[in-house]
Amino acid sequence: MHLRVISHIIFIVKNGIEKYFKRKISLINRHMDNILPNAGKHPSHLFKAMRYSIMSGGKRIRPIIAIAACEALGGKEEAVLDFACAIEMVHCYSLIHDDLPSMDNDDFRRGKPTCHKVFGEAIAILAGDALLNLAFETVAFSKSPGNGKALKSLSLNAGVSGMIAGQCADILSENRKVSRKELLFIHKNKTAALFSCACELGAIAASAGLSATRKMKEFGYNIGMSFQIADDLLDIAGNEKKAGKKLRKDSSAGKNTYPSVFGLQTAEQHALKYSAAAIKIAESFKAQGRALKEITTFLTKRSA
Amino acid sequence: MHLRVISHIIFIVKNGIEKYFKRKISLINRHMDNILPNAGKHPSHLFKAMRYSIMSGGKRIRPIIAIAACEALGGKEEAVLDFACAIEMVHCYSLIHDDLPSMDNDDFRRGKPTCHKVFGEAIAILAGDALLNLAFETVAFSKSPGNGKALKSLSLNAGVSGMIAGQCADILSENRKVSRKELLFIHKNKTAALFSCACELGAIAASAGLSATRKMKEFGYNIGMSFQIADDLLDIAGNEKKAGKKLRKDSSAGKNTYPSVFGLQTAEQHALKYSAAAIKIAESFKAQGRALKEITTFLTKRSA
Repeated sequence: MHLRVISHIIFIVKNGIEKYFKRKISLINRHMDNILPNAGKHPSHLFKAMRYSIMSGGKRIRPIIAIAACEALGGKEEAVLDFACAIEMVHCYSLIHDDLPSMDNDDFRRGKPTCHKVFGEAIAILAGDALLNLAFETVAFSKSPGNGKALKSLSLNAGVSGMIAGQCADILSENRKVSRKELLFIHKNKTAALFSCACELGAIAASAGLSATRKMKEFGYNIGMSFQIADDLLDIAGNEKKAGKKLRKDSSAGKNTYPSVFGLQTAEQHALKYSAAAIKIAESFKAQGRALKEITTFLTKRSA
Repeated sequence: MHLRVISHIIFIVKNGIEKYFKRKISLINRHMDNILPNAGKHPSHLFKAMRYSIMSGGKRIRPIIAIAACEALGGKEEAVLDFACAIEMVHCYSLIHDDLPSMDNDDFRRGKPTCHKVFGEAIAILAGDALLNLAFETVAFSKSPGNGKALKSLSLNAGVSGMIAGQCADILSENRKVSRKELLFIHKNKTAALFSCACELGAIAASAGLSATRKMKEFGYNIGMSFQIADDLLDIAGNEKKAGKKLRKDSSAGKNTYPSVFGLQTAEQHALKYSAAAIKIAESFKAQGRALKEITTFLTKRSA
């Protein structure tokens, strides 16, 4: 086992997962700051809007998972940083567009006014477009190994066979009751695809083989599903101030959620089922999977 | 000179540039039909919206230029088709988002109701996002030579150092008089960057050397500038029915155009200047540059 892998395991054991998160968040934020265009550049309004949304204190769950996946397979965190930030930019652009008046019409995100509330709708649309574009630009120009493969995975999971398809199905399902199959389609594509992609990018940056990569994608799918169900449950039971956004919104907006389609008890059971499956895969990576396991437990507890 | 290059020159000489366009348009449309997700697939509303906007009878100027650039450098048209369609998808997504109520608020495009008028704003935003994503996906999965280089060029020219920067500067300049320098920034980034990219992608698909690629990009920049000034002039003098969109809109919307900033006479002179520079470069490719030359002349005449 590499010294650096041992050192991140020791760090978690000694300091706990929350300090591990804090450390990775600061690393990701520094790298993101380097990637984003300088806000003094022309047209500064666009770059300010991009920075406003990216730097608004996100939890960085997807990029942290990408880094943890890379490290679990013996890769270096520097090798996956470009890919991890690309994932976060895709996630962030999807939130900016989601929050628009014609979509979810949200005024607050992470406790702050949403991008279009501060910069207007036109700039918010362009800032979203720009972040999606910059995600691909970052991977295309990355010196990390396997950036060609990473571009395939990112475009596949973020697009018409992944996130955008899920987002669209979600919007079209408003105010009508959907089947369990349809809800699974939405959650799988809207959320789990990008988690799975984060893990695949981690594996690619670690130059992992086919079998380990497949296992890592499976981990990502399970933690993604568990995360989304937990998010749905949080919408019912959570604390608005702590969440930094309006809750009890899904039901009032006629949105289908895991508990509304499967029932509360089944939703809780399924969240645990996906989380247990993720943990089982994390454990198969032995000590190196420690961070992935702790992240899964941390995200599952979030819903309690 | 390759037989296939000779054959496309003979085709233009015998049949004229308009038949050449028609032939390439049908080739591009067939390839686009293969790339776009089937409208029967779920969520079909998204795929119908993407197909509606892409298949609404665009002139396909950018992809045709990409093909002509590739052929002028001895490449095969099959090698550049993925890249050419990616350029058109980027162009099309930018139009869908441009037309939105919070942007230019246009009800018609190419003589048909705009995407958001038919599918609603939310789906139009997602269809735009999906086309941008699919452009990168198409190049990432392309078997054409140099697709890694193509991804760099596309992301650079379509994003914060190109088209989106220009589009944003354009929106922020509404209802105030801009300097000549600022208008040049807008036209260069909003329009010429993607023309230059089309030419670069053609050169990449033809496995051209550095010097020929640079020359081709320069051709693209000049034809792009000439095209945009011609478009501005068309907004003043053109026929609405023929253009398929509302004209005299730029001035009423408080938009800055080449004639409004430089004056009508200078705008006409500059359109010719850029066009002459493009033709000079096209001629430097000898007989192989014939299509590029004819395309330039055709686009310049459009403004008359």
